[in-house]
Amino acid sequence: MLNTQDFRKHAHVMADWMADYFENVEHYPVMSQVKPGEIKSQLPGSFNESPEKFEEIFKDFEKIIMPGITHWESPNFFAYFPASKSKASVLAEMVTATLGVQGMVWLTSPAATELEDRMMEWMRDLLGLSAEWTGSIQDTASTGTFNALITAREKASGYQINQKGFAGMPQYRIYASEQAHSSIDKNVKIAGFGIDNLVKIPVDKNFAMIPEKLEVAVREDLAKGFHPLFVLGAMGTTGTTAVDPLDKIGQIAQTYNLWYHVDAAYSGAALIVPEFRWMSKGMEMADSMVFNPHKWLFTNFDCNLYYVKDPKALTQAYSITPEYLKTDTDTEVNNYRDWHIQLGRRFRALKLWFVLRSFGAEELRQIIRHHCEWADWLKEEIEQSTQFELLAPVPVNLVCFRYNDGKMSEEELNAFNEKLMKEINASGKIFMTHTKLNGKYTLRWVGGHPELTKGHVERAWALMKEMAAHLGR
Amino acid sequence: MLNTQDFRKHAHVMADWMADYFENVEHYPVMSQVKPGEIKSQLPGSFNESPEKFEEIFKDFEKIIMPGITHWESPNFFAYFPASKSKASVLAEMVTATLGVQGMVWLTSPAATELEDRMMEWMRDLLGLSAEWTGSIQDTASTGTFNALITAREKASGYQINQKGFAGMPQYRIYASEQAHSSIDKNVKIAGFGIDNLVKIPVDKNFAMIPEKLEVAVREDLAKGFHPLFVLGAMGTTGTTAVDPLDKIGQIAQTYNLWYHVDAAYSGAALIVPEFRWMSKGMEMADSMVFNPHKWLFTNFDCNLYYVKDPKALTQAYSITPEYLKTDTDTEVNNYRDWHIQLGRRFRALKLWFVLRSFGAEELRQIIRHHCEWADWLKEEIEQSTQFELLAPVPVNLVCFRYNDGKMSEEELNAFNEKLMKEINASGKIFMTHTKLNGKYTLRWVGGHPELTKGHVERAWALMKEMAAHLGR
Repeated sequence: MLNTQDFRKHAHVMADWMADYFENVEHYPVMSQVKPGEIKSQLPGSFNESPEKFEEIFKDFEKIIMPGITHWESPNFFAYFPASKSKASVLAEMVTATLGVQGMVWLTSPAATELEDRMMEWMRDLLGLSAEWTGSIQDTASTGTFNALITAREKASGYQINQKGFAGMPQYRIYASEQAHSSIDKNVKIAGFGIDNLVKIPVDKNFAMIPEKLEVAVREDLAKGFHPLFVLGAMGTTGTTAVDPLDKIGQIAQTYNLWYHVDAAYSGAALIVPEFRWMSKGMEMADSMVFNPHKWLFTNFDCNLYYVKDPKALTQAYSITPEYLKTDTDTEVNNYRDWHIQLGRRFRALKLWFVLRSFGAEELRQIIRHHCEWADWLKEEIEQSTQFELLAPVPVNLVCFRYNDGKMSEEELNAFNEKLMKEINASGKIFMTHTKLNGKYTLRWVGGHPELTKGHVERAWALMKEMAAHLGR
Repeated sequence: MLNTQDFRKHAHVMADWMADYFENVEHYPVMSQVKPGEIKSQLPGSFNESPEKFEEIFKDFEKIIMPGITHWESPNFFAYFPASKSKASVLAEMVTATLGVQGMVWLTSPAATELEDRMMEWMRDLLGLSAEWTGSIQDTASTGTFNALITAREKASGYQINQKGFAGMPQYRIYASEQAHSSIDKNVKIAGFGIDNLVKIPVDKNFAMIPEKLEVAVREDLAKGFHPLFVLGAMGTTGTTAVDPLDKIGQIAQTYNLWYHVDAAYSGAALIVPEFRWMSKGMEMADSMVFNPHKWLFTNFDCNLYYVKDPKALTQAYSITPEYLKTDTDTEVNNYRDWHIQLGRRFRALKLWFVLRSFGAEELRQIIRHHCEWADWLKEEIEQSTQFELLAPVPVNLVCFRYNDGKMSEEELNAFNEKLMKEINASGKIFMTHTKLNGKYTLRWVGGHPELTKGHVERAWALMKEMAAHLGR
């Protein structure tokens, strides 16, 4: 077992390793280049009886594990949605790991709960939400959206599903656009509604929900005797960051008494910049929303914010207070164990506090603005190119496009673009992922690293063109 | 924004702060002594526009936040179940935070998935489980148990609840002892069964499930036309670490075709020591089990192991593969996103690897043995005392007892023991929590810190006697 003296020594070695990593991360291949099984085969099949020196363990980490890491921390990581953290946030995680606080109830570390209360207020104001909203930090948007579904379910059933189960309950119906994140599908299954009761609403040419189609679907369901329960509006879909018309959806939600949940998991970060608040128009009609500072607000994963107007409905659905969790302050404080499935919870507010204070709001806004400007630049380059084709609007910093020189069939285009992406990723220089839009294999480029520069974007664009030429186009 | 040079400097300051904290943690009051609102009132109501120096932020952390921390890291923390981490595990968290890996699919960092595969094998072997078991790392036992419930639900319904919802399904029934952890209640509600369908089976004088009563309950439910679905066996309840008779429950589960889930969240750690494996007798009949290295195996929260024999039933229930998550290796590798509600996942296997290697199995066993020996010593002291009374058996390292000099009514005893605990906690010297057993206010003492010594246990016992005397007994 390491004693404190050993720990001090190794923690300093780690501190330098961490700083070196940040310094050198651009030199690693962004996407790990290993083959399936390559890492595992280097790890012994059984544990050791005797202690090993930390130096030995760390040597193995560098030799065996590091080649199997895809570098989410690289500014050349343009894949999925980024999980962009910042150095301030990593410093906070060092403290969090050391304290090992369990913030399940107020008493188990009052500061964890009260800093979280405050951070939820700061973030609410930063995002331009009204004081009606309250909330707590959760792990991911998937579980945040799950909370919303369960709350809606229990409110509508008068908490009778919690009590007796679904027997005798109406057939509830859930609505989301065809482009909504897969977590709504997963959650609808898990929460017991059945995926057949998730109604996917068609999208327009910009991949945003067509609200008239939502209303038609709700009316048809009512006519069939179903119970329309819940609608999800996406403020930034995962495929293309399309923005559903939140105001029109909100009006329909109010007319038909639907629980209205907004998924702003990714694009929510842009709401700190006033000129992007057109996206959230109508969000005030929502009952709940999720936003992930761990995606594009430079805060280490995991850090999801679940905002809700009526928290009692959530805590009443989840509350269980066995004797061993009762405390004297239960009526005076927030006990965040009742806000999600888990009981235990990490001290996540600390990293958000470090991030917000060390950047300050203005620098955060500036970075977000730059990312969007550069995405816009890339978009224009693509539009002006005779070889590449833009496939979706670019409301924030995700660009959806493909190679298309006008000389290939749709089938050939799909095959070529898949090959192009794989070659680009295999170069290790940048990492992108894909989606499919109207059957078209679509390259997704998203730049969200806090230290991204215009130069990174220019080099990425040059590489794409180069690679296409290299592949004989 | 901090640059790498600033980061390096502050990371070294942090390294010293962390080591100092470990050195001094015994001098802090274990339970935070602040009042509700005391921390929050010191935090400004709004964020700053301008960046602040890290030194300033950290000064506030020490001044405002630290007094609101309950020190889970103190060896004098004897409350709840410990969340005992180790220094090796904290070093791992430094690396994890720096890499910021998202292990949702293999491709997003092959090493995260493959190290996790291996760690699940190492831990399976360490716990004495057979090679039939496989699994993945999750956040908490609550969600692990939730997985089990959803899997059982979907297997029994032929995945029809996932597809169509509960309509037309039989009334499923879930069984657990009266002493099972509150997460089963919460999960039964959330999963849509209804808490009325959770049948609480009575316990014997040792707080372990009476298996004959389980069989009676199942038969009665069958007679009523219900569908008995799931039984939870606790290998270590939260109240008293009581051990349900896993073998007898297993036989009943097999006879009546119930999904059999074992909650070994806490006491599972003791299974690394062969002489404690009497507790897991019959676990081989189970379908799934949970165990938390973050409780008593010195690995930072969160780190829950969910083991299952048939993982396909789980991944089929949870699987959703939108285009943007498809990869070429999907058929060759584990994509752990399909093993829980969340999509994103931290690189948790690293800390387990650091812990297992830096301690080695033999030292881990030795520490667990010591904890149990010292709990046994405390138990004997209590049994020999004329002032204190043991209230439950001590299978591992949790001691349940109360002050009872034979001169008070039950009501007075409850009031006195509550007062005694609060005075002890208010001293800041040690921290204990309570439960109620057969209506008796019960003090719970549990010693699980890796650096716990017999001296800490002796001083805790001396303090309890002193405090009782101080309160006039």
